[in-house]
Amino acid sequence: MHPDTHTQVAIDLGERSYGISIGAGLLSQDTAWQGLPAAATALIVTNDTVGPLYAQRLQQSLSAHYPKVLTHSLPDGEAYKTWETLQSIFDVLLENACDRKTVLFALGGGVVGDITGFAAACYMRGVPFVQVPTTLLAQVDSSVGGKTAINHPIGKNMIGAFYQPQRVVCDLGTLQSLPARELSAGLAEVIKYGPMADMAFFDWIDHNLDALLQRDPQALAYAVKRSCEIKAHVVGQDERESGLRAILNFGHTFGHAIEAGLGFGEWLHGEAVGCGMVMAAQLSQRLGLVDAAFTQRLTALIARAGLPTVGPDLGAEVYLHHMRVDKKAQAGDIRFVLIDPPGSAVVRGAPDALVSEVVQACCR
Amino acid sequence: MHPDTHTQVAIDLGERSYGISIGAGLLSQDTAWQGLPAAATALIVTNDTVGPLYAQRLQQSLSAHYPKVLTHSLPDGEAYKTWETLQSIFDVLLENACDRKTVLFALGGGVVGDITGFAAACYMRGVPFVQVPTTLLAQVDSSVGGKTAINHPIGKNMIGAFYQPQRVVCDLGTLQSLPARELSAGLAEVIKYGPMADMAFFDWIDHNLDALLQRDPQALAYAVKRSCEIKAHVVGQDERESGLRAILNFGHTFGHAIEAGLGFGEWLHGEAVGCGMVMAAQLSQRLGLVDAAFTQRLTALIARAGLPTVGPDLGAEVYLHHMRVDKKAQAGDIRFVLIDPPGSAVVRGAPDALVSEVVQACCR
Repeated sequence: MHPDTHTQVAIDLGERSYGISIGAGLLSQDTAWQGLPAAATALIVTNDTVGPLYAQRLQQSLSAHYPKVLTHSLPDGEAYKTWETLQSIFDVLLENACDRKTVLFALGGGVVGDITGFAAACYMRGVPFVQVPTTLLAQVDSSVGGKTAINHPIGKNMIGAFYQPQRVVCDLGTLQSLPARELSAGLAEVIKYGPMADMAFFDWIDHNLDALLQRDPQALAYAVKRSCEIKAHVVGQDERESGLRAILNFGHTFGHAIEAGLGFGEWLHGEAVGCGMVMAAQLSQRLGLVDAAFTQRLTALIARAGLPTVGPDLGAEVYLHHMRVDKKAQAGDIRFVLIDPPGSAVVRGAPDALVSEVVQACCR
Repeated sequence: MHPDTHTQVAIDLGERSYGISIGAGLLSQDTAWQGLPAAATALIVTNDTVGPLYAQRLQQSLSAHYPKVLTHSLPDGEAYKTWETLQSIFDVLLENACDRKTVLFALGGGVVGDITGFAAACYMRGVPFVQVPTTLLAQVDSSVGGKTAINHPIGKNMIGAFYQPQRVVCDLGTLQSLPARELSAGLAEVIKYGPMADMAFFDWIDHNLDALLQRDPQALAYAVKRSCEIKAHVVGQDERESGLRAILNFGHTFGHAIEAGLGFGEWLHGEAVGCGMVMAAQLSQRLGLVDAAFTQRLTALIARAGLPTVGPDLGAEVYLHHMRVDKKAQAGDIRFVLIDPPGSAVVRGAPDALVSEVVQACCR
C-alpha cells in the first residue's frame, strides 16, 4: 500500500452525501467497491479509448458484488456528447430489462461521466451511479458538483441535471496512460482553484508543476485531493448553482466561447479553460482588480503546464455572441468570473468595449 | 365568484412545496398568476388541440407578469411524447436565448405536462415550471407527484425526472371542451383513489357519477380536490417512489401492458387504467383479498363511467412480458397493486398461472 497516495474526501450534501476515494490501483482493490447499493445488474459505461485499457479490471472487481455486469462502450470524444449517444445507453438498459435498482458506473473522462450521470438521472427517473474518472480533468472537476449533461447543437451542456453519484473512485494509475495533451488540460482545472480560492495552493502548484507533469503519484494525489476539497467547499454552499458556485467557472466563460466558436472538440475543454483564465485575468486587470504581475505569473504557469495562452482569432463579436447564450448569462448580460484579489473570485458584468479589447489582446 | 367551485390544495414537500388552485375561469383571473418567479421570458408549451382554445387567454394573463411570452405548440397525442418533441422545446428555448430563469407553462393534458415538466427539469439543468392541466386526468394525476417523462420505443415513461412545479392551476372551465372519451379516461384515475385509499370517496363517486359525467362544476371541483388530497397524502410519505407510493399505480400494471401491447396511443391511458383496475380486482379476488361483490361493484362503476372493462386479447404471454419490463418490476418480478381490503392497497407478486387466468377471464 502507498499511504501517501491513498486518500479520501467526504462530500457533505445531507442525504446525498458521498465519498471520493483517491489512490493508485483502486480499480483492482476490492475495498474501493464495497458498500455500494445492491442490484441485480451493474452497467459499466466507458468509451473506445478507455474501455480496452481498464474495463476488464473494473468488470472483475464488480463481479464480486453484482450477479450481472454489463459493459457499454461509447465512441470517444466531445462530439458524441449527444442525445443519440445517451439514447444508446437507454437502449442497452432496456434491452437487458434493467430495473430501477441498476447501478451505472462511468469509466472514462468528463464526457463519459457527464453523459452516464445524465443517463442515471433520467433512466426510470433516477438510478444510482458511480463516477470512475480516468482523466485528471474529470477527477478534479466532475468528481464534485453533481453536474451531468449532454450538448445541444446550439450550446454546450444545455440539457442536463444536477444528480449526485453514490461514490467517486479516482484511480491515479489511470493517469499514467493519459496523453500529455489531456494531462495538461486537467492541470488547467487544477490551476483554476488557486486564483479563485487559495493562493497557497497556487504556490504549491507552481513549485510542484514538474512533478505533476511527470505524473508523480504523491503530487497527483495531493492535487486531486485539494482541488476536490476546494470545489466541495464551494458546492456545499450552493448545490444548485444559484450564486456563489458560479466562481468555479473561472476561465469558463471565455473558454466556452472558444469551444463554441471553433466547434466543440477542436480544443480540449481544459485547453479552452486555460486560455480562458488568461483572458479573464486580462479583463480583471483592465478593471483594476489585479495587477499586471499576477496576470503574468498566471499566464506563465498556464504556458508551463503545456496549455495555450493565445485564443483563436474569431473576432470580438463571435466571442460576445457565444458568451451571451451561455447558461450563466442572465437576460443576455454576460456574467464574468473575475479575480479580485488573487485567491478570491467575483461574478460581475463588464463593458463590451473592454471585453473586445481583451479579445484583441489575447487572440490571433 | 363561485365559492363552491374555487378551492386550493397545499402540497407540502419542504422547500419544494407548492399549491394547486382549482376553479372555473382561472385562466383569465389575474390572482391565479401572481407571485410566480420573475423572469424575462415565459414559454407556454401547449398542443394543436388545446392551444387554439386556451393559449391566447393564458398568454394575455401572463403578459401582465412577463415582458416576453412565447407559445410553442406540439402535435397532439401520446405518440409524440418522444425525444424529438422534447428537443423541439429546447430548440425554441435556445433559439430565443432563454436563460435559466425562464418559466415554462404546460397548457394541456398529461402528455404536454409530462414533456414540458421534463424539459423544465433538463433545460440548463432546471428552470421553473407551472402545470396548467386542461384534462380531468391531468388535473387529478399529474397535478401531484412531480413525475415528468418521455416514452422510449421499448417502454412508456422510461426516461424522465422527479421535478416539482411551482404551482398547478386547474381551470375547470377547460373541462367543458373535453371530448366525452377523455372525460371518462379522467374518471378512471378519480375512481382509482376510492378502492386504494378511501371507500367513502368511492361511495361519493358512485352517487355523483351522473353529475360528473354532466360536468357539473361543483362535483368536478370536489372530485379534483379529493383526488389531489389523497395523492398528496401518499406522495408526501414517499416523494421518490421507493415504496408506498407504488399503490398509486392501482390498475396501471395491467393498464401499461394493454398500452404497450396495442402500441401507445391506441387506447387512452385512462381507458387502460380503467380496464386494468378490473383485472387487478379480479387478481385480488382470486388471491382471496376481496370478495366477488366488490369486484362486481367496481366493474359496474367503471362501465358506467364509459370505460372499457374487457381487455384486448393479446394472450397472457404478451401481458406478462410487458409487465416484466415495467419500471415497477424488480429483477423481472412483477409487482402488482392489489386491493386488500377495499379502501386499502398492497404491492405484491402473484403466480404467473393466476395472472394468466385473469387475462383469460378479462380479455377477448
